[in-house]
Amino acid sequence: MRQLQGIAVSEGVAVAKAYRLAEPDLSITEREGIEPSAEKQRFHDAIANAKVQLEKIRDYAISMVGEEEAEIFSAHLLVLQDPDFHAAIEGEIAQNTQAEKALQKIAQQFIDLFSQMDNEYMRQRAADIEDVTRRILACLLGKILPDVSQIDEEVVLIAYDLSPSVTAQLNKQYVKGFITTIGGRTSHTAILARTLQIPAVVGVKEAETIAHGEMVLLDGASGQLSINPSEEAQREAKERMAVQAEREKQLQQFVEKESVTADGAHIELAANIGSVQDVDAVLKVGADGVGLFRTEFLYMDSTALPTEEQQFELYKAVLEKMNNKPVVVRTLDIGGDKHLEYWQLPKEENPFLGQRAIRLSLANEEIFVTQLRALLRASQYGNLKIMFPMIATMQELRQAKAILQREHDALASEGIAIGKYEVGIMIEVPSAAILADVLAREVDFFSIGTNDLIQYTFASDRMNEATSYLYEPFHPAIIRLIEQVASSAHKHGIWAGMCGEMAGEELALPVLLALGLDELSMSASAILRTRENLSKLNKKVLQQQVDKLLACESAEQVKDWAKQVYN
Amino acid sequence: MRQLQGIAVSEGVAVAKAYRLAEPDLSITEREGIEPSAEKQRFHDAIANAKVQLEKIRDYAISMVGEEEAEIFSAHLLVLQDPDFHAAIEGEIAQNTQAEKALQKIAQQFIDLFSQMDNEYMRQRAADIEDVTRRILACLLGKILPDVSQIDEEVVLIAYDLSPSVTAQLNKQYVKGFITTIGGRTSHTAILARTLQIPAVVGVKEAETIAHGEMVLLDGASGQLSINPSEEAQREAKERMAVQAEREKQLQQFVEKESVTADGAHIELAANIGSVQDVDAVLKVGADGVGLFRTEFLYMDSTALPTEEQQFELYKAVLEKMNNKPVVVRTLDIGGDKHLEYWQLPKEENPFLGQRAIRLSLANEEIFVTQLRALLRASQYGNLKIMFPMIATMQELRQAKAILQREHDALASEGIAIGKYEVGIMIEVPSAAILADVLAREVDFFSIGTNDLIQYTFASDRMNEATSYLYEPFHPAIIRLIEQVASSAHKHGIWAGMCGEMAGEELALPVLLALGLDELSMSASAILRTRENLSKLNKKVLQQQVDKLLACESAEQVKDWAKQVYN
Repeated sequence: MRQLQGIAVSEGVAVAKAYRLAEPDLSITEREGIEPSAEKQRFHDAIANAKVQLEKIRDYAISMVGEEEAEIFSAHLLVLQDPDFHAAIEGEIAQNTQAEKALQKIAQQFIDLFSQMDNEYMRQRAADIEDVTRRILACLLGKILPDVSQIDEEVVLIAYDLSPSVTAQLNKQYVKGFITTIGGRTSHTAILARTLQIPAVVGVKEAETIAHGEMVLLDGASGQLSINPSEEAQREAKERMAVQAEREKQLQQFVEKESVTADGAHIELAANIGSVQDVDAVLKVGADGVGLFRTEFLYMDSTALPTEEQQFELYKAVLEKMNNKPVVVRTLDIGGDKHLEYWQLPKEENPFLGQRAIRLSLANEEIFVTQLRALLRASQYGNLKIMFPMIATMQELRQAKAILQREHDALASEGIAIGKYEVGIMIEVPSAAILADVLAREVDFFSIGTNDLIQYTFASDRMNEATSYLYEPFHPAIIRLIEQVASSAHKHGIWAGMCGEMAGEELALPVLLALGLDELSMSASAILRTRENLSKLNKKVLQQQVDKLLACESAEQVKDWAKQVYN
Repeated sequence: MRQLQGIAVSEGVAVAKAYRLAEPDLSITEREGIEPSAEKQRFHDAIANAKVQLEKIRDYAISMVGEEEAEIFSAHLLVLQDPDFHAAIEGEIAQNTQAEKALQKIAQQFIDLFSQMDNEYMRQRAADIEDVTRRILACLLGKILPDVSQIDEEVVLIAYDLSPSVTAQLNKQYVKGFITTIGGRTSHTAILARTLQIPAVVGVKEAETIAHGEMVLLDGASGQLSINPSEEAQREAKERMAVQAEREKQLQQFVEKESVTADGAHIELAANIGSVQDVDAVLKVGADGVGLFRTEFLYMDSTALPTEEQQFELYKAVLEKMNNKPVVVRTLDIGGDKHLEYWQLPKEENPFLGQRAIRLSLANEEIFVTQLRALLRASQYGNLKIMFPMIATMQELRQAKAILQREHDALASEGIAIGKYEVGIMIEVPSAAILADVLAREVDFFSIGTNDLIQYTFASDRMNEATSYLYEPFHPAIIRLIEQVASSAHKHGIWAGMCGEMAGEELALPVLLALGLDELSMSASAILRTRENLSKLNKKVLQQQVDKLLACESAEQVKDWAKQVYN
């Protein structure tokens, strides 16, 4: 029995045989007599091939880990289709360079450029390019990248590094844990491991000394590894794993249950989706609805603005699949850090404070109208709720609603059937939270987007490491804003939900119940756990303690309040 | 009498003789036998010369138009001292190019680069480089740029264009108005004209047909010009001008008056400064104190971090000059859009949401400590109030206060005398406004920074044209936050002021009185007008109407509330 130590990044215990991930040989053999037009064709075929693979991975990742975490693959798809990247490589090929070498040379230039930058985003970009380049190269060479989804026995995966694309493909049923030689707690791979709830230890320098087939015991909480552990250690670990598995099995009983608190209060537990494919996972856990349909994926996956017809088909399909359960569709939310390759927006000095979401829709009415018409036409196929993102003022809300009404009337006068639908807004700009009592008069619902609301309330870019300490969902400033939004909604007889990351956090649940939210929308994988927790909590009791909650002075006090509820 | 029409950019009537601004000939004569080391020296001398000129202009501009508007000259000084710019020019000179040609070539490259960018900031940068390059070139050629401060009779200035640096030097006593061939309402020149209250019409295509010495009548409200106007038109215009002048003279009586409302409530009317030179203008209008001393100018004007001794001397000088009137000193506020050439901060994706102000001070304690020690040592020379910018949470406040206390104790144990001083914070991050009741327990005062508070509350970069429509000081969300800050302060027995642009706005005054602010800090030029307005308003009556104010649903309603007070 040998002990190794690494960085603990994802909790849980695993004991299984080591599975060393075999990397294909991607070395390039020089070829003579290059024919540029044929090489260009090879390059384009490889791109097309890689695109299919990446889209599959992205869709799988969305269903496994949620859209937020799967966004990295959208970034990869953008890299894959970057016209500058293509043009540079084709330029190389035109000089009689074989496609593989052209790819390698240009990719390296891009990687060097980005990795030198004193900017975390840009360095991440370099990692994205590296990952994508490997995939294109493998396609060019006719090699297959390790397909971890093929693993069909219980293993602990050992690798030098796991790219996010490989990590997102891990099948929890067989991959009980993983160990990598490099990596840190905040790497994308680590975050994915936590989301997937696969125990993981990274930064294990001696990981390469673990042989394929050796028994490995991994503790993802302490970062400790035992190679060839004693029978007793294995037995003990297996018992702990059994408890884990039992826990997951237990949760299955909540698929059919209602989302109610111990004292019988119904809280709508809805799921976030990015595509029609995601609906399967939503139905599988018996979610009460879709609380956030991020329509930007439709736009990001296209090579041109999706037509009214394409959008109509998509919205109709989602509404039908959801079979009259509510579906909250958020209108286009790009800008900020989300871009479309076919619609170049002006560069902004502070994109998070720039022309994004509804601001962009109002400034480009023809694009907005296309989406609204598709939504209105789809409305008769289910329970539709249209939601405008980033509303900051009543003026913007009225402007958006006026356009919607105009299109409604136009469609009606064309004799097109329109179903019932609600109209609501995201509350993610502080001004909207502060003015919630006024805005509540003119909408059917609110949904709080915590990611942005927190970012703006603390004036802190949460992607910026230097200021991320200020990104604190449990801070009393956020608690007070949530309370204000919920109570304003109820005063005007409308419902208030939340679709930010906070909605799926275990510790946040009693807080959000106390504050009076009616709906919580989260990644499908969090629904059952939340429904179970919900069944243990007493809403009336929590609401009796809301004054104590609102009097908290720090995030720590709020967390203590929440912990005491669970204890 | 000839009529011309232009774009009205600054209100007021002027009638005076046309003064055509003669531009020096800056054409370059080719020289033979270039000696690179001598040319380099010439270039450096020109830079040094231009720096002296620009600093003089900047200081003059600060005293005339306030620091906010004068920041463009800090930008010019940065361009002037840009090491990349210098290195590129010296590189050219090293290849036996004469300094003038090297300057022109490199400047043009920079201008081309920046002006192509699809970014308003960057295009403005190109204009800055152009302005600065002209100045360096004039210094190299031994030519003097038109010095409008030499004009000593009443004139209307006629020019093809006025650079901001020339505009900021206009002496109102003689320059009664100006007319330019090009320009628009939002150009820097137009903004400066409004701040200086010099009537101006721009975009007059036929301006070059106006001869030097011709009589000109200019109406800055309508954009109409009369060349050689009739006697009657002149007389009428002169009457209107006399009314204007009378108004300004009347205001002089308020220099000695107290800052009180009609019902005797004292409101502290303080001024914003950026240097010790600015204090003269503050004393001239009899301001009640300095409500915001922006210490970043000290850092921006240096070529290295200012030492404790340099800072001590500056703070002492300001405190002594202010003769026991309060001086609120804001600790270093860089980051965001403010940079130091000798301290390269990492590039950020969203600098306004990044590591700026107190965040930077807390992350670079040695720099913070130097400033705090200088302030503590200066405290015995006047009425010092130390203010931390961009505080978002109690944790940051406590951290900053702990460092201050530690340095206080250290100095005391060294036997250094320390006077009394207050410690307060800027309220400019929404979370601080929302948590004001909690923060009030641990500070001596609040000062609301509206520029940033508005920007964050609406999640809108006010420098971004696409979203600037959201930058609205009179919006009810802002009104509610101000009310919350003022009432939280008073509940805990501390004072609350405002040092953002809103503090000097005429229409804002009744609103801020009703909301209960104790202090307003503005550019020195706004003090007398504000004091006069104050004397006409009844605070008690306004406060009786505060519920109506807080119930407003839109900025328009808030403005209507304020207008009805003045009517």
